[in-house]
Amino acid sequence: MITPAQRLAHIQPFHVMDLLAQARELEAKGRDIIHMEVGEPDFPTSAPVINAGIKAIATGNIHYTPALGLPALREAIAGFYAQRYGLNINPNRIVITPGASGALLLALGVLLDPLKKVMMADPGYPCNLNFVRFLGGIPQTVNVDATTDFQLTSDRVRQNWSDETSVLMLASPSNPTGTLINHHEIKSIAGFVNQKKAGLIVDEIYHGLIYDEQAQTALSISDDIFVINSFSKYFGMTGWRLGWMVAPEYVIKDIDKLAQNLFLAAPTTAQYAALAAFDKDNIAILEQRREEFKQRRDFLLPALRQLGFEIPITPQGAFYLYANCERFTDDSFAFAQKLLNEIGVAVTPGKDFGTNQPEKYLRFSYTTSMQKIEEAVQRLQKFLD
Amino acid sequence: MITPAQRLAHIQPFHVMDLLAQARELEAKGRDIIHMEVGEPDFPTSAPVINAGIKAIATGNIHYTPALGLPALREAIAGFYAQRYGLNINPNRIVITPGASGALLLALGVLLDPLKKVMMADPGYPCNLNFVRFLGGIPQTVNVDATTDFQLTSDRVRQNWSDETSVLMLASPSNPTGTLINHHEIKSIAGFVNQKKAGLIVDEIYHGLIYDEQAQTALSISDDIFVINSFSKYFGMTGWRLGWMVAPEYVIKDIDKLAQNLFLAAPTTAQYAALAAFDKDNIAILEQRREEFKQRRDFLLPALRQLGFEIPITPQGAFYLYANCERFTDDSFAFAQKLLNEIGVAVTPGKDFGTNQPEKYLRFSYTTSMQKIEEAVQRLQKFLD
Repeated sequence: MITPAQRLAHIQPFHVMDLLAQARELEAKGRDIIHMEVGEPDFPTSAPVINAGIKAIATGNIHYTPALGLPALREAIAGFYAQRYGLNINPNRIVITPGASGALLLALGVLLDPLKKVMMADPGYPCNLNFVRFLGGIPQTVNVDATTDFQLTSDRVRQNWSDETSVLMLASPSNPTGTLINHHEIKSIAGFVNQKKAGLIVDEIYHGLIYDEQAQTALSISDDIFVINSFSKYFGMTGWRLGWMVAPEYVIKDIDKLAQNLFLAAPTTAQYAALAAFDKDNIAILEQRREEFKQRRDFLLPALRQLGFEIPITPQGAFYLYANCERFTDDSFAFAQKLLNEIGVAVTPGKDFGTNQPEKYLRFSYTTSMQKIEEAVQRLQKFLD
Repeated sequence: MITPAQRLAHIQPFHVMDLLAQARELEAKGRDIIHMEVGEPDFPTSAPVINAGIKAIATGNIHYTPALGLPALREAIAGFYAQRYGLNINPNRIVITPGASGALLLALGVLLDPLKKVMMADPGYPCNLNFVRFLGGIPQTVNVDATTDFQLTSDRVRQNWSDETSVLMLASPSNPTGTLINHHEIKSIAGFVNQKKAGLIVDEIYHGLIYDEQAQTALSISDDIFVINSFSKYFGMTGWRLGWMVAPEYVIKDIDKLAQNLFLAAPTTAQYAALAAFDKDNIAILEQRREEFKQRRDFLLPALRQLGFEIPITPQGAFYLYANCERFTDDSFAFAQKLLNEIGVAVTPGKDFGTNQPEKYLRFSYTTSMQKIEEAVQRLQKFLD
């Protein structure tokens, strides 16, 4: 037997997978499980995208696209930035990727040398740590809490910066907290990172799902920021595996080289389907869904608070509530298992998002129907009473 | 401006891309270009696969699959090994990946520590070098030539082995040479690699496209070999981005962790479409296409030899001929540019496949119709006379 590479020892599986396996066993026994652990929209892919996908597939001509993506799709995304954000982005700076995961791999591939550090908030998206480790870099997590909306601030970044820090990652809205980072704060951080000649990656994967005010993209601040987005969440295309990145113009040739080698190209079928994603009729469907996510949040947030979960900041985006459950337990993973087994409510334990007091937190996804969310709240109420 | 990560300095873009850009310019001016540089089948995706894809997409339920892939597809692949090779492979050992590229990334992610060496043949598939560099490893190329069918041998492997060598990569059939490695040779190599507690990856991406005798898969030798395959070449599904890997059972958990983090999962649409790939009616179509590739090889190989290109070994598989052109030039890249500009025949220069006398070689792909191949040979004849 071969000894697996050392990086594997540092990479944790998602703990929620154990819960999922248990949930499936319970369901096989006939139990009704309410899934609030899932990180993908419950809606099917919208009809205009489906129809565009079918039309493309029916031709049979599903060959490789250029490594940077279909020119028409890169232009459509530029058009989206113009229309939604009033920004003029050169389509040459837009790279189509196999999921936002592909974009993260390319961005870090271009920015990160082995043994250099990548700063990011804890709690945060767990894969980020592992992308860094995969490339031989060192994740440098900085604990954040409700006092800064669970986001890094310019002060925190400066305080924690080291000579080895070469990349900073932000996410707005954040997974798991759903909170935004203040635009002025990004501006100040971007100025500092630029001065340090380091790289700034901003994850805007949930940017389409913001419920109160329209946030501005980090692209409006500087052309040097790497902004990552996805067709999975707002556009509801998870299983198609398609994302994009806007990168500084001077690294596009390097990104092209990496993409040619690592992926060849993003899935052609998904790229043709996504051409319909920005059409008016499709956006109308997506905006309706956004409204439905908002209604779910507006129900679930006060309900959880009333039950005794602490959620001091109202999350403005994504479809997650990161709830402090220390009133009920000092072990959120055991608590999540109890919720699953005793009342059939599946949620994600804090320890999937880092090492910053994860035992005090659960992530609730509102990626299930309002009816099921109401039922989950009733079950929780009975259980906690 | 940020200084890109050091790995970029070592990663070359594909030189054929320059030729492709020139070809497009010529085509825009109305020139008729015969494309023999392309590494993908010219056939459209077959109807049964298209129909299965459309059926899956029409439901709209295109959510993430498990990271290791759809269980039904893993079982279908196991069935394929049983039927075609008479091998009993546990579906749990089969991992569905976003293209064979995804499989290479996972295999090296599990096997390769930074600063360790990966041995491979030169000439070879150029991305292999870059996957190794991406992970901080060191490619250790070993020159091969016609005397060993452009393949490594057990002797060569032993002679070149070093204490830092931790992975060996073989490809059969090889890209760019189309040659097979002898089954007894793989057996002997596998025994040696196993004794060294190193990893062995065998690329069988072109295994479905073998024209003379049915070759045996390396999986028949040992359960410890990582075997990579693809839906792109034999199955004609390039743009769907789908591949697979059969790995030793004891690393599947580690591969699952990596896949969860790096990809989430392979494209769902492609996975459902691929379920039809193994159906009898589809295999009948693919076998017809294989016959057509064989006819093209059987025409092009003697024709190129007659023109004065040296191809001492008859390539038994893939859709490539790796032709020595030193009778005409001592700079195959300049020669390829000349062929493109003067007679409109696009081929890939040797330097895309390594540093082992690349200036003496051109790769001809027979991924275009017989009619065009005949026309290309006529143009070459006129040009070389």
